[in-house]
Parts: sequence; C-alpha cells; structure tokens
Amino acid sequence: MRGAATVVLPPAVHEPLTPRGTAERCLESARTSTTPGTGGLPEIRQWLEERARVNEFTTTPVPFAQLDGWRFTDDTGDLVHRSGGFFRIRGLDVSGADGPVPHWSQPVIDQPEVGVLGMLAKEIDGVLCLLVQAKMEPGNINVLQLSPTVQATRSNFLRLHGGAATRYLEYFTEPGRGRVLADVLHSEQGGSFYRKRNRNIIVETDEDVVVHDDYRWVTVGQLHALLREDNMVNMDARTVLSCLPLSAPAAAFDDAAQSETAAIQSWLNNAKSRSSLVSRLVPLASVDRWRRSEDAISHEENRYFQVIGTMVRASNREVTSWGQPLIAPRGRGVVAFLVCRTRGDVEVLVHARAEGGTPDVVELGPTVQCVPDNFHGLPAGQQPRYLDLVREAAPGDILYDTLLSEEGGRFYQAENRYLAVGVDDEVRSSTPPPGFRWMALRQLYALVRHGGYLNVEARSLLACLQPMV
Amino acid sequence: MRGAATVVLPPAVHEPLTPRGTAERCLESARTSTTPGTGGLPEIRQWLEERARVNEFTTTPVPFAQLDGWRFTDDTGDLVHRSGGFFRIRGLDVSGADGPVPHWSQPVIDQPEVGVLGMLAKEIDGVLCLLVQAKMEPGNINVLQLSPTVQATRSNFLRLHGGAATRYLEYFTEPGRGRVLADVLHSEQGGSFYRKRNRNIIVETDEDVVVHDDYRWVTVGQLHALLREDNMVNMDARTVLSCLPLSAPAAAFDDAAQSETAAIQSWLNNAKSRSSLVSRLVPLASVDRWRRSEDAISHEENRYFQVIGTMVRASNREVTSWGQPLIAPRGRGVVAFLVCRTRGDVEVLVHARAEGGTPDVVELGPTVQCVPDNFHGLPAGQQPRYLDLVREAAPGDILYDTLLSEEGGRFYQAENRYLAVGVDDEVRSSTPPPGFRWMALRQLYALVRHGGYLNVEARSLLACLQPMV
Repeated sequence: MRGAATVVLPPAVHEPLTPRGTAERCLESARTSTTPGTGGLPEIRQWLEERARVNEFTTTPVPFAQLDGWRFTDDTGDLVHRSGGFFRIRGLDVSGADGPVPHWSQPVIDQPEVGVLGMLAKEIDGVLCLLVQAKMEPGNINVLQLSPTVQATRSNFLRLHGGAATRYLEYFTEPGRGRVLADVLHSEQGGSFYRKRNRNIIVETDEDVVVHDDYRWVTVGQLHALLREDNMVNMDARTVLSCLPLSAPAAAFDDAAQSETAAIQSWLNNAKSRSSLVSRLVPLASVDRWRRSEDAISHEENRYFQVIGTMVRASNREVTSWGQPLIAPRGRGVVAFLVCRTRGDVEVLVHARAEGGTPDVVELGPTVQCVPDNFHGLPAGQQPRYLDLVREAAPGDILYDTLLSEEGGRFYQAENRYLAVGVDDEVRSSTPPPGFRWMALRQLYALVRHGGYLNVEARSLLACLQPMV
Repeated sequence: MRGAATVVLPPAVHEPLTPRGTAERCLESARTSTTPGTGGLPEIRQWLEERARVNEFTTTPVPFAQLDGWRFTDDTGDLVHRSGGFFRIRGLDVSGADGPVPHWSQPVIDQPEVGVLGMLAKEIDGVLCLLVQAKMEPGNINVLQLSPTVQATRSNFLRLHGGAATRYLEYFTEPGRGRVLADVLHSEQGGSFYRKRNRNIIVETDEDVVVHDDYRWVTVGQLHALLREDNMVNMDARTVLSCLPLSAPAAAFDDAAQSETAAIQSWLNNAKSRSSLVSRLVPLASVDRWRRSEDAISHEENRYFQVIGTMVRASNREVTSWGQPLIAPRGRGVVAFLVCRTRGDVEVLVHARAEGGTPDVVELGPTVQCVPDNFHGLPAGQQPRYLDLVREAAPGDILYDTLLSEEGGRFYQAENRYLAVGVDDEVRSSTPPPGFRWMALRQLYALVRHGGYLNVEARSLLACLQPMV
C-alpha cells in the first residue's frame, strides 16, 4: 500500500492529425524563403562572404613537371597519382558515333569508384531544411559555391590523402543513421568521365547536428532562389536536389502516366539498341590528334578542352595543399530545355544522347547540350539541333537563364549557360527529329529517382525547373 | 439545295464509361482461365503435344572436335563461333567475394549484345491475351516449353546464322508498331553470363495477327496455372511476365511505400559500396582448376557445371541443324523465397547477391539460390543461409513448389526447384543476417519495372507469385 504520489503527466504532444508526407514537407520547404532561426537570402550571402574572407584558397596552374604527386607513366603515358588512387587521365577511343565525326579519341577521367554526394536534411521548427556547405574547389571560377553536405570520392573517405575525416560522412555511410529520402546511382559527364557514377543521397535526421562554420541549413525555397544566381549552387548540389521527392508518385502515376513511362523506357532502349557507339579505354599516349606540352594536353585544333595541372592551397580542407590535374573546357557551353506549357502538363524536349563515357551508352539529355565554339565554321546542317532557337529566343520566352559551373574538383572554370526556353504549340506540334521526344516534366521527376535514365546536365536543369511544376 | 439523302449512321459503339486501365485489364486476364475462341488448359496441352509430335528436334552431345562451326582459339583457348557472333565461352576471374572462397576463376558465357525477349499482347473479345510460342531448345529437359513470342539475340535477328527471319520480331524492333506495356533491360544469370542483359518487352497490338502453328494466345491466368507445372514455362517467358503491369503504381505508391523504395535503394547501394568483388574476363585457357577433355570443360572436383558441345537438329527453326556449346550444371538448384503474410502486406526475404557476371555487381535475389550439391561435405556454417528452413518446410507451409528450367538455348537440362515457403511472425521478427532484408512483394513488382534491381532468379519467382498479390 503506497501513499499518495505526485502524478507526472507526459508533456503535451501536438501531433498533426495526419502525419505530413515527405512530398508535402518538401513542397512546404520549397515555399519557405527563411530558415527558422538563421534568416533569409541576405544572411546566406553575408555568411558566404564571411566564409570567403576567413578561408584562404588559391589555385595556380603549373607545368606538369611541378604537379606534386602526379606523373605520366612510362608505358601508357597516363597521368596518375602516386597513391594509385583518386583518378587517372587516360585515353578513350570512341567509334560508331552518330554525326559527322564517327570515330575519335580523347583524354578522359577514369575513376572506377562510386562517390558519395550526400545532403543532410532535418526539420527545423517544422520546416525541412538541407545542410549545405560553402565549399571551395580548385576549378571554381569564383572559388566558393554551395555544395552538398558531403561530396566525397571513395579515395577521399578512405583518407588516401592522409588528411582529416570528411565531416558528416557517417550519415551517408552508416546504414540506419537517418531516414533515407533518396539514394540513386547517377552518372557524371559522359563527355569527360569514363562511366563514372555517384550515389546521390538525401538523409533526414532527428539528431542534434553540430553545424560547423562552413555549413548552413537552408530551405528548398532558398536553394531554388539561389539557383537563379550565377555560379552559386554547384553541380553536385544540383544533381542531389534533382532527386528530392517533391511530388508523390501516387499523384503523378495514373494509368496514363504509367503507359507513358513504359513508352519512354522503350524509346530509350531503342536508342541504345540502335546506337553502334563503342568506347574503350586506351593509353593516353595513343590518343590521336592531341598534343602534350609542358603545360597542357590540347587538341591540335584547340577545340574541346585542355588537361592542365594546378597547385591548390586551402585553409579549410582535409589537406591544406595539393596538386591535381583539371579539365579546362574551351569556350562556354549551352545547356537548354525547350519547354511547352500549352498541353496541360509542363513538357520538355528531351534528347537521347550517346556519349563515349556514359555508363550505358545512351541517357536522356537536355534539348541542347554543346559548346558552340566547337562547331565554329561548320555548315548549318552540322550545327547542334535547336541551338539557333535557344540563342534567338525572345526575352519573354526565356523561363530560366543562369550561368552554372560544372564540378570544380575536376573542371577548371567550366561555366555553362543553362536555359529553359518556352515554345508555342506550333513547335510542340511539329514532329521532332529522330532522337528527340517531348516528355512531361513530372515523368522526368519520377524517372530521376532511378539511375541510368537522365544525364547530369538534364538533372541540373531538373533541379532548376522544380519551381515550375 | 440537295435532295433527300439516306442518312448513314455510324455503327453503334459500346464503349465502357471509363476506359479500363492496363493494370485492370491485366488483372482481368489473370482471372480468366479460357482463351476466347481457343479454349482452356486441356486445349493448350493438346496443342503442345501436337507441336511436339509434328516437329522433330534432337540434341546430341558431341566431342568438341565434332562441334560444327566452333573452335578453340589458339591464343586464348576461348571457344568461339566461326562468324565471330553469337557468344563465346571465355574465362572469368573473380576476386574479393564474400564467403569461404574469395577468389576463383571459371568459364563464362560472353555475349556483349542485348537480346530481345518480346511478348505480343492483344485483346481478344475484351480479354488481354499473350502470344506464346511452343519452342524447342537444345538444352530443354523435355524438348519443348512455352516461350515468349520472340526470343532473339542480336546475332539471331541480324540473321548471322543465314536462316529465316524471326517471326513477329517487327513488333519489338519497329518503334510505334504497338502500345508498349513494358520494356526493361534486365540481367541474366550472373553465375554463368558476363554482364548479359535482355530487353524484356510486352507490346500490345490492335492489328490482326496471323498466328503460326507454333504460337498460341493464352491469358495471364492460364500462364499462372501453367507456371505450376514442371518445366512448362521457360525462363524467358517468366522474366517477361514478371514485368507485366498487374498493379497500378498509383495504388501501390503512397508516401510510406515511396519512403520504403528509397530505403531499399539505399540498402542495395550500400551493398554495392561494401562489396569488394571485382571480376574480369580472362583467357579460357588460363582458368584455374578447370580441365578441358575431348568432351567437356569440367571443374577438377566435378562441382558447379560443365561446358559441353551439342549438335542440334530441328524441323521448325530458322536453321534446321547446328552445333553449339551448352552449360550443363551439376545437380539441381534450389531457388526460394521465404514469404510472410502476418503483417498486412505479403513480404519476402530478399538477399543482396554479388555475382561475378552481374552487370552492376549486386542485385536483389531470392532468399535461397544455390545448388546444394556444390556445398556437399562443407560444415553447417558454410551452408547457404535458410536452405535448411526451405528443405525442412512442412507441406502446409509450401506455397509454391515447381521444377523450372533455365534457358534451354544456353543451359543443358538445367532444372531448378523453385519454392515459396511461408514462415510465421517469429521468423519475420528476428533480425535477418547482413545481406538479407524483408520487402513487400508490391515493392518488388514496382522495382521490376526498372533494370538493375532484381536478378533473373528473383524475377522468375515474382512471375510465379503474381497470383498471391
């Protein structure tokens, strides 16, 4: 028999009547332009300026002879790191391609390991936020861009560089550490990488997260706004963001949409079957029409890109100085979707692109994806399809137009102009040439949750166009 | 001003108020056990007996020296066809595998081209029917099995064999010829093929189809019934059938299911990241612990399989006689899912399997997939997980148990026992060992519409278990 005791009630819990779904929470975050507790876009810009001021970071092109830790092998001429890790510059022989040049060889980045691009998510005062990093990369035209929480190759996180551990990596490599919102194996640039893929991961945590100075919680809406600023959100952040489950498949997937998915799969598989493109790695020394000087490996007509050496000094990286090769493109690229909104759904014109380094030969790419300078002097019939339409678009038809960089860890000042150009029903009604097909954006947002469908340029644009759906 | 004219009314059309969706039509076909106009299972059996009687087909094992059109190359010892086409028997070197044998080499089928497995569909009196073929294959234990409408390698349909064209192929290679219900690039056996994939296609036509004697329309329900007969429905028909859109993703895909899909993708990607398995093609002559005699290539302990030569005579094939190698397994395999139905959803225990020839190293496989004889004499700790549970299952717990053959075009009398064994919540509640995970069947039916997730043995079982969902 016990005496009277104080009854302790559990604290009142105000749960919503229906738990909100992931898509709903992502959409709410997309409509939110202020991070609870830490402010809006002005505060983000202040923080970025401060990070740029506090951290030192310099990239200096150097002759290959001064490229610390790297050498050309005697037998193949490949450019390799002394650890055998990271990546190699090798040769790629491509034959059976469509178009005026069916056969060529070129330098290529060979990195036969799967990297991790991880974005940590957490609800802050009920708003789903993403932890971005103010990351300095050697190839960045403006040194610092917003990156995912983690951006690591296997070599990095095995710490082949002998430096510090990668922050927050445990959320993406320890199973069960959080709730997985996305985890998709996606390709990188098929024009520069040989079958390289990364895991695009978004993990939500309920844990308390210590936010280091170079990191910051942002809303999806803030990221969408920042995607409209030149060279602000890096490629890795864009491809991870494209996988965010903003729409519930249940809503998008009626019977008609399912039929259309099968039709798209069939169209892509037909393109793969039809393609006779064959690519294989060859010694860098055997690559035809490319010349190696003391400073660069260049095409004999100065087209496409150069491979250069750089020395990097950084105050806030796992190691504070290192040498590495980078791919330096010639000229600025154009990456564009034609968009049509006259038929209910928002539709984009997709191009089935076969590239030498694409893991499975063909992926769905944007309507236009090229460096116009590479086509300089060629007749009209050999210019990229729809490039003229994109270039001559009336200002009122331009729905999106921003300079975005390719990944600064591999590319030197690789800036492309990303566009979305609205077209009328007349363009939409004409039969597109072989290899092009109109698809509903919501179809692409469903497909991007699986690997092997969309190339990295298309995924970048998908991230930028999320506010449109 | 015209005179009175006879008014011709269009014929009355009785369309349903709502057009039926594909999933609904597939489900209706699954509930139908009679093909309109041509009868039920007894008529199908009669037809099969007649086809077996009318067509002559013999397979005779022969020494390699008598294997018409094939030879071992001088430099590598690979077994190749004189055309350079079809396939080659090469060597595969596998290292970094889990388990007691981390490194081995073995013969492997190398066929670096994508085949077509096509099932033609058509509504007959409102019932969706599939056109199956009574196909004789050299390795079939019973000569004749039900196959998809088209089962062709690229070499076949390019007619490298110099024979007749493949019937009905145009429905699967000419875009726009019909309505695509499924078109998925799926892998074949990772234990015997090097990264081989096929397009699994289902195309629905409205055209009149001339049905050749060796072909017949069947309902999905009839196929499900025939899948319960030993060695009746061949492997190619099973994997294509597994892709049939029996359930609408809209119904299956609420927010919770979407989260679970991401979790499964993450689990699979983790398994890929963790796997250190590396496999590469090597000369057949360099394969260790395998011996070539006049009649066969065999493992020194007579385990696993043999490569043998056969001469084939057929009255109803594109060419009427040919020689070819076949893979002859040692002993009968066991392929099984543990099934639990205590938690609302029908769930199966999936095993993330790394195999030497799997295109992307790891795929989701059945709970058990092994040839028990290969483990003869090994201690209990090295026996395949859950094999004992499957073998000792009480009759009342066996939900499916049928002998099914692997593809008779590559395998000689390769018969496996396919099972589904029900388990209680006690088994379901215990934490499965690493590499195993319970998944809802409906999740797998959604994933099988994309390539790279499910291996061919799991897909076979998915086809057999369709009536369960």
